[in-house]
Amino acid sequence: MGLDTPKEKPHDRLATLLSEDMGRVNALIRERMASKHAPRIPEVTAHLVEAGGKRLRPLLTLASARMCGYDGPFHVHLAATVEFIHTATLLHDDVVDESSQRRGRPTANLLWDNKSSVLVGDYLFARSFQLMVEPGNLRVLDILSNAAATIAEGEVLQLTAAQDLKTDEDIYLQVVRGKTAALFSAATEVGGVIAEVDEEQIKALFDYGDALGIAFQIADDLLDYRGDSAATGKNVGDDFRERKLTLPVIKAIAAADEDERAFWKRTIEKGDQQDGDLEHALALLDRHGALEATRDDALAWAEKAKTALGSLPQSELRDVLIELANFVVARLY
Amino acid sequence: MGLDTPKEKPHDRLATLLSEDMGRVNALIRERMASKHAPRIPEVTAHLVEAGGKRLRPLLTLASARMCGYDGPFHVHLAATVEFIHTATLLHDDVVDESSQRRGRPTANLLWDNKSSVLVGDYLFARSFQLMVEPGNLRVLDILSNAAATIAEGEVLQLTAAQDLKTDEDIYLQVVRGKTAALFSAATEVGGVIAEVDEEQIKALFDYGDALGIAFQIADDLLDYRGDSAATGKNVGDDFRERKLTLPVIKAIAAADEDERAFWKRTIEKGDQQDGDLEHALALLDRHGALEATRDDALAWAEKAKTALGSLPQSELRDVLIELANFVVARLY
Repeated sequence: MGLDTPKEKPHDRLATLLSEDMGRVNALIRERMASKHAPRIPEVTAHLVEAGGKRLRPLLTLASARMCGYDGPFHVHLAATVEFIHTATLLHDDVVDESSQRRGRPTANLLWDNKSSVLVGDYLFARSFQLMVEPGNLRVLDILSNAAATIAEGEVLQLTAAQDLKTDEDIYLQVVRGKTAALFSAATEVGGVIAEVDEEQIKALFDYGDALGIAFQIADDLLDYRGDSAATGKNVGDDFRERKLTLPVIKAIAAADEDERAFWKRTIEKGDQQDGDLEHALALLDRHGALEATRDDALAWAEKAKTALGSLPQSELRDVLIELANFVVARLY
Repeated sequence: MGLDTPKEKPHDRLATLLSEDMGRVNALIRERMASKHAPRIPEVTAHLVEAGGKRLRPLLTLASARMCGYDGPFHVHLAATVEFIHTATLLHDDVVDESSQRRGRPTANLLWDNKSSVLVGDYLFARSFQLMVEPGNLRVLDILSNAAATIAEGEVLQLTAAQDLKTDEDIYLQVVRGKTAALFSAATEVGGVIAEVDEEQIKALFDYGDALGIAFQIADDLLDYRGDSAATGKNVGDDFRERKLTLPVIKAIAAADEDERAFWKRTIEKGDQQDGDLEHALALLDRHGALEATRDDALAWAEKAKTALGSLPQSELRDVLIELANFVVARLY
């Protein structure tokens, strides 16, 4: 690649390197989301699956398996599994958040109804379990069923924790694992497990996925306050307006004096927000250096992700995954 | 039992015969529905799980395993698995149907909110998958993950089929398998599989659960028009008012003349119902003998259930299961 060539994004490079495998994954997804009798299922699912998501999670599974020398057929099933779990959670999230847009298109709950989103989500969960059973590997089932439980527990936790000023960084981290990191780490770990590499390498893959997912989510939560709507598709302060307690505010609350606590209590816990509150919130984040501290956390998690992969043998896929960890936080500089 | 003793209901007899196993199932359910971090989960789940359901599905699994001579520990996990799947579907059903009462108590979606019901349902699904992985039996996983997919597909199918006059008895049967019979047949089949009995016996257990579930659901749908609110907790014609196409109406539509079709089209497909419509619907069911024909179907399925069990060795549990098939349709005489 010459100096003049704009650098390809790491997930695009992954998609290129793994395009043959990914073709199989897409074919399997299309095959399994069909339903002979209930046409509503492929309608709803196609709307979401074909909407052009980055397919990052299945790419992580394929990359991990290939990087570990796997040459059987089942990384394709596991990659489709994680995409189905992801798609199911998106359908249910949009019902729970009463969202009307995702990836720039109207959500399924808006186009059809909440009923369809709930039930088609359930169908995709069930399909994902069918898929993960097929490789006949009990350890893989253990990992993926645990991830599914962590995801659901994190989502429920967020219902109560997001507006509770007692939510600390530990609880935040658990919510983040549920929202993002649990599926990332399961996606990478199962790649190593089916390739039957040694325990140390499997642990490294898990740690990479976990840290990458956390870095990714912290970066997202930070950009919500820093404002970079081109990168996030969100407006500055969406989380504040939706009364979602994320890391920047948790850090500011930990350092808050009495007046400041009263402000957060009114705006986040009670949801009584007035003109000028967002500006005041931003000033408080600034006063306590909360955005810088949050950025430092994201960078530290990205670093942890890269260090984990450092213990694996060098390969082109490994280097792209390391690049991906850089990319996730590059938008924070 | 003397002639003067009122006869105990078969599911109560099952509960008595299996009380020790069932104690273990209940302890496991309580243990696994806990969540250290998200207290909303046990709140919602306890509301439903402790509400005094009959625990029929776990009893079917325990009975099947014991009847086949199983003496390991894992029938308890599988029984808890089917109860978790059942509870998860109830939570989601109440959101989808916008129900406000279940088993005589306010529903979780009313007491908390739809969000909690969706996400706690997801948590229970995930927990059920963790539980079903623990016995380490891939065939069991295959059966239960297929059942979960059939359930979800049937629910989605019902969304579109319930108000569509083209819905015929085949589609109805598929919806019924999704709503009821798929979990019954999986519950009985896995009992035989972990007991490692021969294929013929496993098939017999599957056939029993399938036919019992279908008989049970047809009887329910019939009683909705016959009116027996003591037995069903529903008022005569609830399904008609909610525009749910069930077997009696499907049979009446199949025999309908042009005027009658127009009536069904208006009341069920378009939902334009007026005073006197229910009475007219009942008259049409009567004219075409639809209630008798539906009852005959229920009785035939109950017979099929009993015949299936006939191929298994005689035992007290087997005889109670046969009695259960009689009981399910006894309320139709």
